[in-house]
Amino acid sequence: MSESLDSLARRVAERLLARGEKVAVAETSAGGLVNHALTDIAGSSKWYAGGAVPYTTVAKAALCGLDPEAVAAEGSVSAYTAREMARGIRGRLGAGWGIAETGIAGPQAGRRSPKPAGVTYLAVAGEVTGRAVEREREIATGASDRLANKEAFAAALLGLLLETIEAAG
Amino acid sequence: MSESLDSLARRVAERLLARGEKVAVAETSAGGLVNHALTDIAGSSKWYAGGAVPYTTVAKAALCGLDPEAVAAEGSVSAYTAREMARGIRGRLGAGWGIAETGIAGPQAGRRSPKPAGVTYLAVAGEVTGRAVEREREIATGASDRLANKEAFAAALLGLLLETIEAAG
Repeated sequence: MSESLDSLARRVAERLLARGEKVAVAETSAGGLVNHALTDIAGSSKWYAGGAVPYTTVAKAALCGLDPEAVAAEGSVSAYTAREMARGIRGRLGAGWGIAETGIAGPQAGRRSPKPAGVTYLAVAGEVTGRAVEREREIATGASDRLANKEAFAAALLGLLLETIEAAG
Repeated sequence: MSESLDSLARRVAERLLARGEKVAVAETSAGGLVNHALTDIAGSSKWYAGGAVPYTTVAKAALCGLDPEAVAAEGSVSAYTAREMARGIRGRLGAGWGIAETGIAGPQAGRRSPKPAGVTYLAVAGEVTGRAVEREREIATGASDRLANKEAFAAALLGLLLETIEAAG
């Protein structure tokens, strides 16, 4: 695991522990790496609620509660799907924060969409003092290296969570 | 990632591709590493259906359909829970094979059970020509190194799947 992903995971752990909150993770093209990075930290059960890797539309419906018809209409790699995955995994696991990623790790481009490898959509869903706090981001690494993209997507998602917590106060 | 885990994942990919089957994964103390190892392989969507990391009892119920009262009675780290996770993730994702792991990566022993770090329960659930094929195993690494245990648990689960497929014919 890259040093930066490990250090981002440690910062997430510190922030969530200090706030007494947990995070739940739904990731597709990062493929389990976000969950893996978070659970590498001893004591993760204090601030990590669990996660899902809903690779297919069936899995997005079964694990995160997405509407398969809406996913088909919006695209499985889309801001809509990332947002609904974040909201869905948060609600299902009863966590303070839900974070989600859906993209194309490569090396091939998406089969059912014109999107190239290296593109992903990220979303964070949470609540601070009764107010919904959500943030989204699209990134494009420009790379088709599968492992490098998985690392970049995972790091970007943890970075977006940290930013969102920081901004929410 | 260790070479052995990577090479086990490649053998799983080859076997499933040849059989035209997919696998779904539920893991707790391996923490996402099994999903991550499988999705490191390009083209994994052809034989990998997705997975879950149901860290809490709430997550085991929400993502794999387990009965929280039964989990409490049998223990979250038990053969029962591993078996139900394998059956549950297989059914929810509509995959040919479901594989599951629930254990204690460490470095601390389980808080709510007398089990030491390094213990895990593994389960495989599938069907071959209309006949249920299931296999279970308990392992104890004797180690309290969290990262080494995650790797050992992940490798043992992929090994158990390969053995089960081999024996089922």
